[in-house]
Amino acid sequence: MPSRIKQLLLGDPLHNRESAHQRLSNPVALAVFSSDALSSVAYATEEILLVLILAGAAALSVALPIAIAIGLLLIIVATSYRQTIKAYPGGGGAYIVAKENLGVNAGLVAGGSLLVDYVLTVAVSISAGTAAITSAFPALERYTIVIALALLTVLAMSNLRGVRESGAVFAGPTFFFVFMMAILIVVGLFKVLTGGTIAVPAHPAPVTQALTLFLILRAFASGCTAMTGVEAIANGVQAFKQPEARNARLTLTWMAGILLFMFVGTTVLATAAHVRPGAETVLSQLARGTFGTGVLYYLLQAATAAILVLAANTSYADFPRLGSFMAGDGFLPKQLRDTGYRLVHSNGIVLLTTVAGALLMAFQGDTNRLIPLYAVGVFTSFTLSQAGMVVHWWKNREPGWHVSMAVNGAGAVTTAVVLVVIAVTKFLHGAWLVIILVPVLVIYFKFIHARYAAVFERLRITSGALSATACGEIEPLHNHVVLLVGTIDKRMIRAIQYAKTLKADSMEAIYVDLTGDSGEAMRDKWERCELGIPLTVIDSPYREIIEPIRAYVSAIPRPDVDHAITVIVPEFVPETYVDYMLHDKTSFWIKQTLFRLPGVIIADVPFRLGSES
Amino acid sequence: MPSRIKQLLLGDPLHNRESAHQRLSNPVALAVFSSDALSSVAYATEEILLVLILAGAAALSVALPIAIAIGLLLIIVATSYRQTIKAYPGGGGAYIVAKENLGVNAGLVAGGSLLVDYVLTVAVSISAGTAAITSAFPALERYTIVIALALLTVLAMSNLRGVRESGAVFAGPTFFFVFMMAILIVVGLFKVLTGGTIAVPAHPAPVTQALTLFLILRAFASGCTAMTGVEAIANGVQAFKQPEARNARLTLTWMAGILLFMFVGTTVLATAAHVRPGAETVLSQLARGTFGTGVLYYLLQAATAAILVLAANTSYADFPRLGSFMAGDGFLPKQLRDTGYRLVHSNGIVLLTTVAGALLMAFQGDTNRLIPLYAVGVFTSFTLSQAGMVVHWWKNREPGWHVSMAVNGAGAVTTAVVLVVIAVTKFLHGAWLVIILVPVLVIYFKFIHARYAAVFERLRITSGALSATACGEIEPLHNHVVLLVGTIDKRMIRAIQYAKTLKADSMEAIYVDLTGDSGEAMRDKWERCELGIPLTVIDSPYREIIEPIRAYVSAIPRPDVDHAITVIVPEFVPETYVDYMLHDKTSFWIKQTLFRLPGVIIADVPFRLGSES
Repeated sequence: MPSRIKQLLLGDPLHNRESAHQRLSNPVALAVFSSDALSSVAYATEEILLVLILAGAAALSVALPIAIAIGLLLIIVATSYRQTIKAYPGGGGAYIVAKENLGVNAGLVAGGSLLVDYVLTVAVSISAGTAAITSAFPALERYTIVIALALLTVLAMSNLRGVRESGAVFAGPTFFFVFMMAILIVVGLFKVLTGGTIAVPAHPAPVTQALTLFLILRAFASGCTAMTGVEAIANGVQAFKQPEARNARLTLTWMAGILLFMFVGTTVLATAAHVRPGAETVLSQLARGTFGTGVLYYLLQAATAAILVLAANTSYADFPRLGSFMAGDGFLPKQLRDTGYRLVHSNGIVLLTTVAGALLMAFQGDTNRLIPLYAVGVFTSFTLSQAGMVVHWWKNREPGWHVSMAVNGAGAVTTAVVLVVIAVTKFLHGAWLVIILVPVLVIYFKFIHARYAAVFERLRITSGALSATACGEIEPLHNHVVLLVGTIDKRMIRAIQYAKTLKADSMEAIYVDLTGDSGEAMRDKWERCELGIPLTVIDSPYREIIEPIRAYVSAIPRPDVDHAITVIVPEFVPETYVDYMLHDKTSFWIKQTLFRLPGVIIADVPFRLGSES
Repeated sequence: MPSRIKQLLLGDPLHNRESAHQRLSNPVALAVFSSDALSSVAYATEEILLVLILAGAAALSVALPIAIAIGLLLIIVATSYRQTIKAYPGGGGAYIVAKENLGVNAGLVAGGSLLVDYVLTVAVSISAGTAAITSAFPALERYTIVIALALLTVLAMSNLRGVRESGAVFAGPTFFFVFMMAILIVVGLFKVLTGGTIAVPAHPAPVTQALTLFLILRAFASGCTAMTGVEAIANGVQAFKQPEARNARLTLTWMAGILLFMFVGTTVLATAAHVRPGAETVLSQLARGTFGTGVLYYLLQAATAAILVLAANTSYADFPRLGSFMAGDGFLPKQLRDTGYRLVHSNGIVLLTTVAGALLMAFQGDTNRLIPLYAVGVFTSFTLSQAGMVVHWWKNREPGWHVSMAVNGAGAVTTAVVLVVIAVTKFLHGAWLVIILVPVLVIYFKFIHARYAAVFERLRITSGALSATACGEIEPLHNHVVLLVGTIDKRMIRAIQYAKTLKADSMEAIYVDLTGDSGEAMRDKWERCELGIPLTVIDSPYREIIEPIRAYVSAIPRPDVDHAITVIVPEFVPETYVDYMLHDKTSFWIKQTLFRLPGVIIADVPFRLGSES
């Protein structure tokens, strides 16, 4: 029944050999891996304006130089990542690159930063997508959180189904968004250049701060959210068709070009139209002003909402993958490593959904409140990744390593500077949370690693006789057998039959007398059966059944670790669910309790009513 | 840790031999078993007035004859129950009396009716107790449900501690209530007889119905709630000190006398004072009018609230006891039969608390809405119990059986007539729910009984060789041993040591290859160990571990039921809670899954890090 539901929701399970086939063509990969980066066009310009407006309407014109600066940064980072893909065709995420070249600690900082940022990508993208919907239909504004959580659920489900289907679902909307944005920018610029106007609401813009360098840098830092997701392609090289590296590099170039055009284009248009941020998104204002509130307007809003939801999908590809890498290295619980039913890392998907859902609820689905937490993590991983690449080229000296190292060096320095700018200017607005969280995560990773290492060490076979190449002569355990007796019935007969298959040093049966007078009756009955197994009756004046058994078994002397006590637990397995409910759970709790006692082996001998065996 | 908390809340566990000492002296027994009956004085008069007021203020004078009729009924029923105690010194609850004399079905109807009424006693008494508090302090009215649930919790806890402490807690308030009521009635009547007046609020009393016979009967039926709890002493004879029967009969007579005095006295006073029911309880109005809102008034309200909460305690003594009887007979789940840590039936107490709490929440703690459901069950059990006694005397013909049979016969006829009156007049107001519920419960009891009987029959040893007196020669099982292999480490060595203690027909090891390429490596390693156990590698293209094991094991041929498959599950037991969390739960699920397969025996071989064994 549960597996039927699983199949209905998730589709048929995928065979291991379908793994290689789960690869994406370049256009589909562009859609899957770039939706995060491309969709930031929906809020990046607005975030710049939101900071600048503090210095009054006149300050908004500074947005364009800031956007151009971010555009240049984008070119530097994309070029730098092209080098990474070349060197790491197996998938060059910041975690792997930093760990291999800068050491484990740098890798863990990069990994922790990325995990945090993936969660934020989901939360920010979904809340911005919800804002696109509520901008188009202001009546829905009070359902913000409901809409956001519904979108999150759809995303989680589609990802549990697996990556190829995700690609198919996501390709259409991404290209549709790019297409609609192109129309908006071209039509809008044409209007402006031909002397037309783009009518936008005249929100008040009181001057509350001076236009200081700090404010400009803070606006720049906010705009840098446009850069999040640029690393996605480098992390996911293995999802491309062969030749993976070449396809990934090509796709990265395409993505950077499209993003540059849309982001700078939107900012030019916003500056020309004198848009001021308000409850309605900047993009919605621009679209209404350019197209009027007609079909084209609604199409753009729909495309924006769609790509933003899909942007979260980048994290659904990367978060579980990174979690699985880190779990494989023993830095996260092993449960995150398991590949699920549909070749996806189900536990990672569930974890991501849970944390992002909690964030959405905590921040009431408000994009502007989430933004200050964002980008710190991504620029940390950018910096570590590029710095790692510099070391990589230095060590490997492959042909052309000079140029590659110079490119990555420029990337590392630039992103490091930007990281400092972001951390300082957004610190009080929320970045402090991430700056504290990442080191805490690193400590957590190392703690987990130490626990696994300790357990592994203690389970390892170390003595000469039991070396890894020859297990040697393994002696059987000395075995004292304890048979738990309740009623003399078929299940007991079966347990005795099993007891007779054991080579035991000694054997006894025990019976717990709960009422103070049933022990004698049982002893008589037992003796009449002439089983040759001595019966011990244990008094239980406090009417407990489990505790006297535990006390009795733990008091049995064991000369050394090679002396075991096998407790035979006769059980009866009800045939139906109703009988199961009517059956008390004493056996289960006896097993759970005995499981903790040193030297005890539990032989669970069920008598199944359905099969009489 | 949990057992420390248990001890703190519940006290030390009680030894079986303390059972006989847990008996109550007559005054304490009066307090424990009569609080239900006595406390109904707090609402019975009010319930009569609430019906009569529909016919206007003049109709209220009919309350006195109704109260006298109920008083006569009380004398008949109490006399009748004295006969029951004589015949059933071991405890003559309606369930036992009806089952023994009228057959199982009558017993189950009586049992079901009583269980329903015990739950209602808790709900009604607690809501009426809360009303006494909110009448004294009207500002607390909006916390009605909170107060009610808090009282319920206190009750449940004190009962989980055990019956004697309950007696000690409850004796004081019960006698205090009787004392305060005596002062109220004496002072009030003195005031009225000496020409004084008892000032009460003049609530409007519009005439909405004619004073028909039906309305009078309905008022009578509502007043019959005063009778609930009269059976408690007869059910609990065993809680009295020796000689139990004599003590119980004496206590019953005392209780009936006190109840009669208080109930009729209150009704006389209410009629004389022309009290009309309102938001404030009738008793509170009478006390304010008689004493003024001073110390005596607050003392009476406190005593009323206290005895009402304690009234619920009667059910806490009887519900779990009846549940335990019925579970012992196989009509309720066996879990209700277990006597807990403090010699009380803990599961019954928890069940009663849960259902009563749900009722309180559903009815928002409103006594007047709960009353129509009440008393149907109790009069059903009265009738069946007395009728059963008639049959008992007829069959046994003990000395004086003629008189006893006549008394019980009168009781049976009277209560049967009253039952019809209650069922008819309160039907639409809620009694229908109980009239439907009791047969449903009876079907449920029979269903459970049938399930237990079926299981018992199938587990019973029937063949000649395995008769109850001699188990005969039991042959060992034929055993095919399957060793689950994961990693070759210390836990595996231990599992192999255990495997060597088994007399197996055949033995094999199985390894599940999750990745498609780890099987060969394991096979090499395994062969180098030269264990003499053949290894089977199972492919798992869908990366599942449990399902391939299940499929493999269930496909192993078994010629007959005496061929078993022992699956050895090597486990590792983490030493700390943290390691436990990091450890995946695969072994547990493997065991749960294999537990359902016919013929499979599970040998759980743990390697405990703490003890190396």
